[in-house]
Amino acid sequence: MEHQRRVRDSFDRQAFMTTIGARMTGLEPGHCVLEMASRPDLCQQNGFIHAGATTALADTAAGYAAFSLMPPGTDVLTVEFKMNLLNPAKGERLIARAQVIKPGRTLMVVRSDVVAITGTEEKPVATMLATMMCLKEA
Amino acid sequence: MEHQRRVRDSFDRQAFMTTIGARMTGLEPGHCVLEMASRPDLCQQNGFIHAGATTALADTAAGYAAFSLMPPGTDVLTVEFKMNLLNPAKGERLIARAQVIKPGRTLMVVRSDVVAITGTEEKPVATMLATMMCLKEA
Amino acid sequence: MEHQRRVRDSFDRQAFMTTIGARMTGLEPGHCVLEMASRPDLCQQNGFIHAGATTALADTAAGYAAFSLMPPGTDVLTVEFKMNLLNPAKGERLIARAQVIKPGRTLMVVRSDVVAITGTEEKPVATMLATMMCLKEA
Amino acid sequence: MEHQRRVRDSFDRQAFMTTIGARMTGLEPGHCVLEMASRPDLCQQNGFIHAGATTALADTAAGYAAFSLMPPGTDVLTVEFKMNLLNPAKGERLIARAQVIKPGRTLMVVRSDVVAITGTEEKPVATMLATMMCLKEA
Repeated sequence: MEHQRRVRDSFDRQAFMTTIGARMTGLEPGHCVLEMASRPDLCQQNGFIHAGATTALADTAAGYAAFSLMPPGTDVLTVEFKMNLLNPAKGERLIARAQVIKPGRTLMVVRSDVVAITGTEEKPVATMLATMMCLKEA
Repeated sequence: MEHQRRVRDSFDRQAFMTTIGARMTGLEPGHCVLEMASRPDLCQQNGFIHAGATTALADTAAGYAAFSLMPPGTDVLTVEFKMNLLNPAKGERLIARAQVIKPGRTLMVVRSDVVAITGTEEKPVATMLATMMCLKEA
Repeated sequence: MEHQRRVRDSFDRQAFMTTIGARMTGLEPGHCVLEMASRPDLCQQNGFIHAGATTALADTAAGYAAFSLMPPGTDVLTVEFKMNLLNPAKGERLIARAQVIKPGRTLMVVRSDVVAITGTEEKPVATMLATMMCLKEA
Repeated sequence: MEHQRRVRDSFDRQAFMTTIGARMTGLEPGHCVLEMASRPDLCQQNGFIHAGATTALADTAAGYAAFSLMPPGTDVLTVEFKMNLLNPAKGERLIARAQVIKPGRTLMVVRSDVVAITGTEEKPVATMLATMMCLKEA
């Protein structure tokens, strides 16, 4: 449970996650799930959730999926990500599900998929392919 | 000045830009500049601006750089972007400068560079390569 | 079987696929599989298959996975792709398996995974996330 | 000139560069230029140079731009790249010009632009944004 505590402590220090209303609803080694309720102040010009907010959710889920596999005394850094937007981000809430597809000592490759939930319906919103780096803490 | 008005009207309807405190400080055909002041509620676990907020700024600048070249009666949609994070986003404010590098009738390729400003110093934070799509309005 | 014929005719006209020894070994609507035997003239400085050859295989599989869903009288064009290299491309042959994850009238998003085969062992080599465009033929 | 020799030695061992007819025509610390003549066996179904061959050129230029800044006793590895195709690759030859935009001890971010040359005319073909890694040789 050590990795659980380290990941959740780090997540709780991310003020921007509070700003956008994101919560961590799942965490296992190499996997992380974040959720965010739809809100008017997260939207773009057409009333859909802004790609920037969607990306914040996807990137953070990806980072903690990777961090959950990193040893104590390290921190996680996003090297880069690529995001394909698949459908308008419209629904009651968004869920980002990230999983490490290639672990490594220095770098990890992570996929992070975002879906929109309306009632019991789930619709794909975006898919991210990201590279995360393990940093030794100073 | 028609494109100026259309772009600024659309930007003003982006509630998420208000949420993160972004302002449009430059706009010419094919170019767009956005600025955002550093704030604690935009940060990640180490006190740097969150990559999600940085991406929101870069993506929005890229979208409006493209939209400034699109004809009346259309809207702009982000197809995809790739973001490389170059340095921690630390400074008094961030500036995203986007320019269309390949205009097209349906698709436009845009580069968007984000820098951090501290006093008179400017440091690169991230570079984005994005694809934007021109949509006929319903 | 119409889409089968159109795809295979197009693939057969790709001289570069002959140059690198690629064959199409699977094709269904939205899916395409290509194989390429390992050869010294496809390698980089350490004796692994060059990322450029791997990318050619992944991109072509992705393109035909998308093309298989496009109507007659159209052609397919790669808009962009992102490739993460996961392990050295070492083995008897490479297989690229592509599937459309988001079909669309103008754009399709495709995932293309490359594995290396040695005997009965299969190892991930790379994963690509690509955007393909449907073009009306002149 | 030490970095010149190391880079050119490595390039000369890339059999795939011989296969596609690529030559190194420029090399300075952080910069690399490769050229490739147009040939029928490099083409796709419409007679343009295949995106895979274009990518091989761009990726190799990017790798050696990064490698030129790495210390002796190291090797270079492509972590990932993203490629936007801007125009059909049609011309007498292609030139890839790569430059490091963010050097680092472990990772380097590189931009690599490909143009097509016909007579004295130069047309953009593709732009790549890549991450390269510095590996200690065993």
